[in-house]
Amino acid sequence: MIYLDNSATTKPHPEVLQSFQQVSTSFFANPSSIHILGGETEKLLLKSKEQAANLLNVYEDEIIFTSGGTEGNNIAIKGIALQHQGRGKHIITSEIEHPSVYEACKSLEALGFQITYLPVNETGVVSVEDVKRAIQPDTILISIMHVNNEIGSIQPIKEIGEIAKNHPKLFFHVDHVQGLGKVPITLSNSGIDLCTMSGHKIHGLKGTGILYKRRGVKLFPLFHGGDQELKIRSGTENLAGAVAFVKALRLIKERQVRDSEKLFQLNLYLRQELGEIEEVVINSSEQAAPHILNFSIPGLKPEVMIHTLGKQGIFISTKSACSSKDLDESRIVKACGFSQDRAKSALRVSLTYDNTMDEIKTFIHKLKEAINQLKEVME
Amino acid sequence: MIYLDNSATTKPHPEVLQSFQQVSTSFFANPSSIHILGGETEKLLLKSKEQAANLLNVYEDEIIFTSGGTEGNNIAIKGIALQHQGRGKHIITSEIEHPSVYEACKSLEALGFQITYLPVNETGVVSVEDVKRAIQPDTILISIMHVNNEIGSIQPIKEIGEIAKNHPKLFFHVDHVQGLGKVPITLSNSGIDLCTMSGHKIHGLKGTGILYKRRGVKLFPLFHGGDQELKIRSGTENLAGAVAFVKALRLIKERQVRDSEKLFQLNLYLRQELGEIEEVVINSSEQAAPHILNFSIPGLKPEVMIHTLGKQGIFISTKSACSSKDLDESRIVKACGFSQDRAKSALRVSLTYDNTMDEIKTFIHKLKEAINQLKEVME
Repeated sequence: MIYLDNSATTKPHPEVLQSFQQVSTSFFANPSSIHILGGETEKLLLKSKEQAANLLNVYEDEIIFTSGGTEGNNIAIKGIALQHQGRGKHIITSEIEHPSVYEACKSLEALGFQITYLPVNETGVVSVEDVKRAIQPDTILISIMHVNNEIGSIQPIKEIGEIAKNHPKLFFHVDHVQGLGKVPITLSNSGIDLCTMSGHKIHGLKGTGILYKRRGVKLFPLFHGGDQELKIRSGTENLAGAVAFVKALRLIKERQVRDSEKLFQLNLYLRQELGEIEEVVINSSEQAAPHILNFSIPGLKPEVMIHTLGKQGIFISTKSACSSKDLDESRIVKACGFSQDRAKSALRVSLTYDNTMDEIKTFIHKLKEAINQLKEVME
Repeated sequence: MIYLDNSATTKPHPEVLQSFQQVSTSFFANPSSIHILGGETEKLLLKSKEQAANLLNVYEDEIIFTSGGTEGNNIAIKGIALQHQGRGKHIITSEIEHPSVYEACKSLEALGFQITYLPVNETGVVSVEDVKRAIQPDTILISIMHVNNEIGSIQPIKEIGEIAKNHPKLFFHVDHVQGLGKVPITLSNSGIDLCTMSGHKIHGLKGTGILYKRRGVKLFPLFHGGDQELKIRSGTENLAGAVAFVKALRLIKERQVRDSEKLFQLNLYLRQELGEIEEVVINSSEQAAPHILNFSIPGLKPEVMIHTLGKQGIFISTKSACSSKDLDESRIVKACGFSQDRAKSALRVSLTYDNTMDEIKTFIHKLKEAINQLKEVME
C-alpha cells in the first residue's frame, strides 16, 4: 500500500495506541472524582498538559483538550462570536478555509454576524494588506488558517499576528491542523489568541485534539456541564486520548527536526516529475508546504484517477476529505483564480515522514500509466 | 481494589479496548475519502450504526455518534433551542438534572430563553402532572433525565413521552446516561425525540457516545464543517470509538439480561445493612435504580469518609463527579427536600455488574469501622 492521503488522516503510531491502551486500563477513574484514583488520573491529566505546553512553548493553562479539529475551530469561532457579540459582530476570514471554519462562519451569518471572506492570490495566499484593510471598529475576530488543506499554501500568520497585536480588541484564531508537525509556527507572544490542532493528522487518534487559548481570552462554551477544561469544554476528560495526543505531538516534533529535509526532497521530486507530464498542471505553488501537492489533469474526472490508482494500492485524494462528497469543483482551487476545468479535476498528494522515495517513484510511474490508459475516456 | 464509583466512570472492558485497537490500526482511513480505503471505513461506520440501531431498536439514521454524554446533552438542548427559537423560547426541565443539562439550560437563559425547573418529591421524582401543567404555547422542549446520577431516582419517562406525543410541536429529550444498560427504556414510538448515551458509563471508552435523534427532528449543529453524522456533528468520525461504543453497548445489554437480579440483590443487601447503622440515613428511595445508592452520615464531611475508605482501596463518591469539586451541598439531595446537613454529607455507592457480594460485605464492614473511628471528629 502506498498511502498518499495523509492530509485526510494518518495511520496512528503504534506507540500512540499503546499509550491509549495503558491509560484506559490503568488510569480509568474520573479525574473529577475526589478519591485517590481520581486524584491519580487528575495528576496525569495535568502532567499531559504540562508536556503539551512544553512542546508548544506555551503555558499549561492555555491547553484545552478537545475531540479534534472541527471541535477546536467551532469552539474558537462560535465561542468568540457568542461571548463578544456585544462589542461587535464582524469577523474576517478567508475564502480558502477548511469547512469547519468556513461553515462555522456561514452559520454565524444566520445569527446576524457579518463575515468578510478575503480572497487569495494565485498561489493561494491571503494578502496582509487585505487583512489590515478589512478591519472595522466592530471586528471581533480574524480567523485565518496556517497551511491550506488542499493546496498547501502557507498564510502569513506571523504578519497577521502583528496586525492583531495592534488591535487589542479583536481576537486572532489560527487553524493549524495541517501545519502541525510540518510547518513551524510560534504561538507565544505572536498575536495569536486561539489555535486549533488535531490528533489524527499527526499519527495520533481520531477524537483527539488541542485548542490553544491564550491566557485571559474569554469564550462562550459550546458544552456546558461539569466545568472541565477551564470551563470551556465540559465533559469527563478523555484522559487516554489526551495522553495519546501528547505522545503523537512529541513524536511528530521529533520527526519534524529529523526528517523535514526528506519531505522537501520528496516534494521536489514529485514536482519535477509531475511538471514533465503533459496532461498535468500543478496547482500548489513552490512556496507551499512540503507535504501537500495539488495538481489537475484537466478533462479527467478526479474520481476516475483515484479509483484507477486505488485498485493498485495507491491512495491519493480529490480536494479535502471533509468536502470530498460534494461533486462540484474545489472551492479552494477556484479561489486561486484557476479555471473551472482545473478546479473540477484537482487531485491531492499529501505526504507524511514515513513516505519513501521508492513510493513516490512508483506513484509517478503508475500515474503516467493511468493517464495513458484514461486518455481516451477524457471528456 | 473495591470500586464502587461506577456512576462516575467504569473500567473499560478489555474487548472494547481490543476493538478500538483493531479498528485504529486496520481501518484508519477517513470515511469521507473516496478511495477504497475510505470506502471500507465508511462501510464499517454504517455497519456500526446498524448494530447500534438494532441494539436500541431504532433506525440507523437515528444514531449520531458523539464524544460523550455532555456533548449529547448540549447538542440536543442547544440544538433544539437555536433551531426552533422562532416558534418559542420556553423549555421545561427539572431541578435534579445532570450539570450538562442544567448548565446548558442556564446558558440559554442568557440568550433570552425561559426555563421551568420542575421540583421533585422526596423520592427524587418529577410529577407527571407538573410536567403537563408547565407546558405553554411557546414550549419547544422538555428535557428530563431517565435515572438520576446521584440518587438513582427513575423518572416517569414513559408517561412524559405520552404527554409529548399529545404536543407534537414540542420535543422531548431524555438524558439516559445513567440508565443505559441498567434500567430499560423504550425509544421507538415513545414520544422521545432525543436521547443521550455515554460510552464510559457502560465499560466503554471516554470520548464516545450516541445521541438518538428521531427521524425528522431538526437541530442547529454545534459543530459545522464537513457535514458528517447527518450534518449534526461535523468532524472526521472517530470510527474506532464508534465501534468500541457499540461493542460496549452489546456487552452491557447481555449483562443486563443475565445479571440484573444480582445487582438487585447487592442493592437489597446494601440497603439492609446501611439501614442498621445508626449514623446513616438513606437518601435513595426503594424505587430507585438498583445500581445507585445514596446515603448521608449527617455531621460527617463526606470527603473525610472517602479518603478513609480510599486508603483501604475502597472507592465511593460524594455527589456526581461532574460537580464533586463544588464544596457546597448536593443540589440533588437538597431538591428532594432533605435538610442541609443531610445534603452536605451525602455519599454515593454506584455499582456495576462486576461487583460481588464479598466486595459489598467488605465495604459495609470497613464503613462501620470508619464511622466508629471518625465519630469523634464529627462536627
